[in-house]
Amino acid sequence: MPGPSLTALELAQRLEGTLQGCPPDRVLTRVLPLDEAGEGDLSFLSNPKYRAKAHESAAGLILADAGADLGDRPVLVVKNPYWAFAQAVGWLYPEPEPEFHDGPVHPAARLGEGVRLGYGATVGARTVIGARTRIHPGVHIAEDCVVGEDCEFFPGAVLYRGTRVGDRVRVHANAVLGSDGFGYVPVQGVHRKIPQVGWVEVGDDVEIGAASTVDRGALGPTRVGAGTKIDNLCQIAHNVQVGEHCVMASMTGISGSTTLGHHVTLAGKVGTAGHIHIGNGAICTGNCMVGKDVPDGAMMSGHLARPHRDWLEAQAALGRLPGVLRTLKQKGIL
Amino acid sequence: MPGPSLTALELAQRLEGTLQGCPPDRVLTRVLPLDEAGEGDLSFLSNPKYRAKAHESAAGLILADAGADLGDRPVLVVKNPYWAFAQAVGWLYPEPEPEFHDGPVHPAARLGEGVRLGYGATVGARTVIGARTRIHPGVHIAEDCVVGEDCEFFPGAVLYRGTRVGDRVRVHANAVLGSDGFGYVPVQGVHRKIPQVGWVEVGDDVEIGAASTVDRGALGPTRVGAGTKIDNLCQIAHNVQVGEHCVMASMTGISGSTTLGHHVTLAGKVGTAGHIHIGNGAICTGNCMVGKDVPDGAMMSGHLARPHRDWLEAQAALGRLPGVLRTLKQKGIL
Amino acid sequence: MPGPSLTALELAQRLEGTLQGCPPDRVLTRVLPLDEAGEGDLSFLSNPKYRAKAHESAAGLILADAGADLGDRPVLVVKNPYWAFAQAVGWLYPEPEPEFHDGPVHPAARLGEGVRLGYGATVGARTVIGARTRIHPGVHIAEDCVVGEDCEFFPGAVLYRGTRVGDRVRVHANAVLGSDGFGYVPVQGVHRKIPQVGWVEVGDDVEIGAASTVDRGALGPTRVGAGTKIDNLCQIAHNVQVGEHCVMASMTGISGSTTLGHHVTLAGKVGTAGHIHIGNGAICTGNCMVGKDVPDGAMMSGHLARPHRDWLEAQAALGRLPGVLRTLKQKGIL
Repeated sequence: MPGPSLTALELAQRLEGTLQGCPPDRVLTRVLPLDEAGEGDLSFLSNPKYRAKAHESAAGLILADAGADLGDRPVLVVKNPYWAFAQAVGWLYPEPEPEFHDGPVHPAARLGEGVRLGYGATVGARTVIGARTRIHPGVHIAEDCVVGEDCEFFPGAVLYRGTRVGDRVRVHANAVLGSDGFGYVPVQGVHRKIPQVGWVEVGDDVEIGAASTVDRGALGPTRVGAGTKIDNLCQIAHNVQVGEHCVMASMTGISGSTTLGHHVTLAGKVGTAGHIHIGNGAICTGNCMVGKDVPDGAMMSGHLARPHRDWLEAQAALGRLPGVLRTLKQKGIL
Repeated sequence: MPGPSLTALELAQRLEGTLQGCPPDRVLTRVLPLDEAGEGDLSFLSNPKYRAKAHESAAGLILADAGADLGDRPVLVVKNPYWAFAQAVGWLYPEPEPEFHDGPVHPAARLGEGVRLGYGATVGARTVIGARTRIHPGVHIAEDCVVGEDCEFFPGAVLYRGTRVGDRVRVHANAVLGSDGFGYVPVQGVHRKIPQVGWVEVGDDVEIGAASTVDRGALGPTRVGAGTKIDNLCQIAHNVQVGEHCVMASMTGISGSTTLGHHVTLAGKVGTAGHIHIGNGAICTGNCMVGKDVPDGAMMSGHLARPHRDWLEAQAALGRLPGVLRTLKQKGIL
Repeated sequence: MPGPSLTALELAQRLEGTLQGCPPDRVLTRVLPLDEAGEGDLSFLSNPKYRAKAHESAAGLILADAGADLGDRPVLVVKNPYWAFAQAVGWLYPEPEPEFHDGPVHPAARLGEGVRLGYGATVGARTVIGARTRIHPGVHIAEDCVVGEDCEFFPGAVLYRGTRVGDRVRVHANAVLGSDGFGYVPVQGVHRKIPQVGWVEVGDDVEIGAASTVDRGALGPTRVGAGTKIDNLCQIAHNVQVGEHCVMASMTGISGSTTLGHHVTLAGKVGTAGHIHIGNGAICTGNCMVGKDVPDGAMMSGHLARPHRDWLEAQAALGRLPGVLRTLKQKGIL
């Protein structure tokens, strides 16, 4: 169903901004990144390092501040483009009211043949559950979800509105798919929420451990690729893209918008920065914190993560260091 | 409602201790720290470094061991003051029996206008829910809670007895507010529980992520200040005081009794020691472990956390170290 | 009840392997490690370092590859012994269908005197609950569990099928006992699941924090010893054996098959490798990552964990290192 739309003029009025190079009656219906946006789409420039992208953007309207200098691009000049963006997201993608119902299965839900439902589980409006999927007691699947065949959801697992899950997916107890991403704009010292209007997509044959959390995208999907296995108490932040056949051991956290290739192995308690890429077949050992891109096939360790051999060498050297400093002092060098 | 009380004599008899400088009929009704206790209050001295505080305390009775030497202070001499304290907490603040009921909303609960309740959610006795608050399926709010207006609780969120939540608070799926703090006294090799009789207070406009946990205070509140945003899988231990407008990214853990100022930023996977203070506007970067107080405005990194620039320099030096050691060996210095 | 069994010949046919030194009609009913298996038991040799164990094994049949060279031991030669083992586990220990029922308590469950059950909680078939145990709203206890007396389960706690819990155990909100361990065999780039057919055993007087997870064993039990206290958001992996009277602070994770002695203290955010042993009375300080065995009574710190004093010394030396490198450069040594 089509969502609401706003004209450039309406946006300018609501955001108290000034239109430049944009017909006031241009209709905006979506919000997209600079390099994906087309004529009907709103985008924004907040970080100056993306100015070149903004210059080349085909967006119908770009939110930017007075110093942005974007030539003939259609611009809505506002004081705080990031906050203006957050507000526009809220207007163009309004959160629907939750549709609570009195019984476990909403009359508008569709359950496939042989679906089994435990006591106290709920299935929301328009949600579709594939054949033979087992929904244990106390599982809550909200509105507009699409769940494949032969899945199993253990007690207390939660799917927020709009979550999409493939076939043969197992979600363990108290795991959460589709919770809000962690996105705020500081406005005069107050953290104003960026509406999180994306969703979660989980491929076939994925297994997700107990009490793990996968946040919905801010815009668009957070994805977990087919065949990937995620252990307990892991966190997948908004707009992360996990490739296929990855393995992620317990207590690993992937920060927002980071992408993993295929066949990546993350041992327990790994953490990553946001907006980085971990290449195909890379391995990150236990407890390492990955601060930047990891090439295909690399093996990384440590905090900050270094190539595994360098890390082993550095750890050995660190162990020797106190003795070395004593020797240097005895020799009068220090 | 007033709780139970005990006379100094009754305490002495139950704890098999000896009263010094205290009328046996003095009535004790509360347990408080040495510097907050008054005449009707029981306190205790377990760690000798607090002896000066005990000397100045106005407590009606102080549990201490035979070597404490507290002059004319009213003392109950016991073998293990910490264990005596734990027992006294249990007597003066007895845990009420949970009041289960047959339906979702206890008849003694009060729901404001426009409150919406999902299937399988429960609201306990005497709990008050503010207007328009949305309680999704499978949320459990226990007895004696106070919840503000326009809040939203996603499926599986749990509020233990006595939790207090402001207005416009969002608590994501499977988050837990008010679970017991982690407090035990070792008594002859066995960990005896210190009853956790405090509660959780959450200010207005707070958001708490999926599967995060906020423990109740041991005595008194654990507090999360207004406007603070907490990501998924975070842990706030007993008696932590988080200031206003803080941001805490995923998998961060704050140990017991630590205090955060306002506008503190903790990146993902940060850990802190207990009983420290992190100043206003301080920033702790990803995965850092904060072992001691952090001044206002500081930026800390690493494990153990150091000022961010020192940490960057140390990390760079560590990377060079194996080569340096080889050079020193080649030159015959090592 | 006895499970299914297979003859050596049936196994050879299903796994497309070749029998050596084993009568084709030998009946195999269990899968056990090389050093525990007897005549009716199947075992496997995947890692060549266990070949000596395989030579001495009394197993009725050993899955091994063509190069294993196990003399007169009864062997089923297969291409991928680990994957063959995973398949055989699935055949000999088939996962029963979950037995959902229409009400909160399955008619075949047995509740002791004075058990209290909150709204929306469920108790599965053949599960036995001891006297006076309190089961809060939204707790889900599956089939074939055995729960002791005077326990308390807070809202959203989940016990998978077959979990065994002693007396006076407290399990906090949204904790999970008995979820699948994280075990897969890579077969041509795809992670094939090793059925997790063990269970969880929790001793008397254990307390488990909110949103913590304890995985069932792959085969046999994962154990938490009597008197042990586990904080929030901890992870205990499959086949871990935690001794008695241990303390594990928040966000600690124990990897698979690791064993802890008694009276072990793990501070917050500790991580351990798998298959190691942490000795009686050992202490691991906050955030440390334990990569190998820890002797009785040792105190370990850091990442990788070292003895605490060595770690303090190394950390101090690391802080001095940038200055030392500058000095060495000034003196012309570097």
